[in-house]
Amino acid sequence: MSDGPFLPIDGARLIGRQRIMDAVGATRGGGVHRLALGPADTEARALLIGWACARGFTVETDEAANLFFTRPGRDPGLLPVAMGSHTDSQPHAGRFDGMTGVLAAFEVLEALEDRNASHEAPVICAVWTSEEGGARFPHGTIGSSLYAATRDKAAMMDQTDNQGIRFAEAVAGFHAAFPDLKRREPGGRFAAFLELHIEQARALQDSGNRIGVVTAIQGLRRYRVSVTGEEAHAGTTPRLHRRDALNGATALIAALRAACLDEADLLRFTVGQMSVLPGSAAVVPGRVEFTIDLRHPERQILDGTTAEFRRLAALGAEGCEAAIEEMSRSDPTVFADPLVERIDAAARRRGYPAMRLVSGANHDAANIARLSGQTGMIFIPCLDGISHNEKETASDADILAGTEVLADTVADLAGLWG
Amino acid sequence: MSDGPFLPIDGARLIGRQRIMDAVGATRGGGVHRLALGPADTEARALLIGWACARGFTVETDEAANLFFTRPGRDPGLLPVAMGSHTDSQPHAGRFDGMTGVLAAFEVLEALEDRNASHEAPVICAVWTSEEGGARFPHGTIGSSLYAATRDKAAMMDQTDNQGIRFAEAVAGFHAAFPDLKRREPGGRFAAFLELHIEQARALQDSGNRIGVVTAIQGLRRYRVSVTGEEAHAGTTPRLHRRDALNGATALIAALRAACLDEADLLRFTVGQMSVLPGSAAVVPGRVEFTIDLRHPERQILDGTTAEFRRLAALGAEGCEAAIEEMSRSDPTVFADPLVERIDAAARRRGYPAMRLVSGANHDAANIARLSGQTGMIFIPCLDGISHNEKETASDADILAGTEVLADTVADLAGLWG
Repeated sequence: MSDGPFLPIDGARLIGRQRIMDAVGATRGGGVHRLALGPADTEARALLIGWACARGFTVETDEAANLFFTRPGRDPGLLPVAMGSHTDSQPHAGRFDGMTGVLAAFEVLEALEDRNASHEAPVICAVWTSEEGGARFPHGTIGSSLYAATRDKAAMMDQTDNQGIRFAEAVAGFHAAFPDLKRREPGGRFAAFLELHIEQARALQDSGNRIGVVTAIQGLRRYRVSVTGEEAHAGTTPRLHRRDALNGATALIAALRAACLDEADLLRFTVGQMSVLPGSAAVVPGRVEFTIDLRHPERQILDGTTAEFRRLAALGAEGCEAAIEEMSRSDPTVFADPLVERIDAAARRRGYPAMRLVSGANHDAANIARLSGQTGMIFIPCLDGISHNEKETASDADILAGTEVLADTVADLAGLWG
Repeated sequence: MSDGPFLPIDGARLIGRQRIMDAVGATRGGGVHRLALGPADTEARALLIGWACARGFTVETDEAANLFFTRPGRDPGLLPVAMGSHTDSQPHAGRFDGMTGVLAAFEVLEALEDRNASHEAPVICAVWTSEEGGARFPHGTIGSSLYAATRDKAAMMDQTDNQGIRFAEAVAGFHAAFPDLKRREPGGRFAAFLELHIEQARALQDSGNRIGVVTAIQGLRRYRVSVTGEEAHAGTTPRLHRRDALNGATALIAALRAACLDEADLLRFTVGQMSVLPGSAAVVPGRVEFTIDLRHPERQILDGTTAEFRRLAALGAEGCEAAIEEMSRSDPTVFADPLVERIDAAARRRGYPAMRLVSGANHDAANIARLSGQTGMIFIPCLDGISHNEKETASDADILAGTEVLADTVADLAGLWG
């Protein structure tokens, strides 16, 4: 076969499947609610497994309930060329985050099968479990971190959702629902790994580009902060005698936020969860706990900001004590230049305007980069940069364009055109 | 009988029953968790009913599950002299708030029965249901407000706990557990109503007094504030494009708090509940809701502060919109001078140093004042003013002293000494 460098893909099938998945865990607000390994996520995975079986792709799962759909190559000794993303979502979130990357990768397998293509290396579409941190389980990118052994396995397996269900139990439930799947050992290396994803920001839209060639993923630190004051009666305790933990928390958050006002607007500071205890309208709070999600492309900035956070917490606030605990971290990931060049070239050959950018969001690709000869990501625009929101929107044309760039790049890497 | 003006009470029985009730719903932290009409509250009520039956007191309940223990007087045509408080608690709170007043009132009945006393008016010990607002049900002093018809009945009956159980259903459950209790019509007037309670502040301790003669109860307004921004991805959304509802809420709370910095330190401003939505560490919050509990002895100050709150909310904060909704209100209550004088005189005769003060907390007495010829409250010290807290402490000697003042006052009002 020598019709390179273009691998034709079936846009109707691709977009049709996007519409099918839009309905899996659909919310009234036009988004999806597909928490990792919950009913809707399991339904989405069942659909993929069914489609894979219908086309004869190998289907495997591993100890983290990751899924691997494989089309074998001519040379079984070669490391596979892998693609993939995730099917789970944040609560009441968007339809394209993760899922579009899975469907694009799956479509590349379909396109190869359509042509009965003979490529040298095996080609894999992977579905990584529970990518969305803080949605069902506290950590993000759980499945890919277990596959790549980038985090402590016991800590990942033992984390619980808000019902007290351990991640390991959720995995066992998935395996029990699909008892016939072959098992794959984690840690198997890839020749390359590619992930297509919506940008979740508006650099592509604002610059009029259709393809984002990702050069790096910014680092992420997640902290839990507890502020301790003293419970007291809301009606009888004068200001003078209060140690109001919510007062302390709001003052501390304001100080932490002020420490993140970088001129370049690259440092991302978010308090996304907060619990106020004992949680009665008539009781001055004795304790407040909240999360910090902190991201930046440079590790030194993350380290410096964290040091400032610790200094501020040590000062206390409004008579309360504060403590900061690190919940998780992922350092910035820089992608290899050759693959960045290859994706860029594929976009140019298709005639799609492309730009290089840094990913603000963390992705499974950051973990899998530890196991891959080369790793890259392809971003497509999402409307106004809105993501983790039911209003998240990506156009059919951009999904198609991104999938074409993915397909050409993977076909090339897998030796389709010799 | 003419041994007035002292009605002897049995301190061992009184304190013994306090210790029994300390164990009902006891928490590891040394407090109690006795949410209204929950298992522990029902157990406490069952003990009181048993003690009342053993002594032949009349036991009645009403449509709000309030309890009435009555010792009849010589003249059944006279309005009763009533006392009482509540048995429910805030979550993981103290042992004396409410319960000590119920036990003191019950002990007065016992003391009259011990002496086979013949008083003119009936004497009642009342237990008012669900006094603690925001603990199980949103509103406070529910039972006494239904008895005195000071609030809309349907709104009170339909409010739900966090399991979705309506107040009316909780009442029905209590009635089903005690099917033999006689029913009392709500709204029956009293010649007088007295409530003994811990001070929940430290004026008595700081001034070296043992008895607080309450001249008024400050007013209470409770509001729910919602701040609406836009959900967004925590990693990809620059500051410039965020409308972070938690950022808006912390800024608004700081502004509201600043509007409450009165020099006299009499205005009480508390944010005791907050929910952050969607509540994921990786999502910029799109909505935050919180409660305000606002109290002051003067209605004009409450009105003026509320107007300022509404002005601040209308401005919005950090690109977010804010709305304030009133959840409940009780205006300040001023107690009648003659009963204040009578309590003060009773304390002086017993030799207990006494002072007059305004109650910072709201109490059932504020509702019952609408139905009583005269209403008063007797405060006893609690250590360091700490209340709504497992560490809440009142000394046996102060409980005894307060009960003696209550007993003498009630015996006098009921015509024990002619």
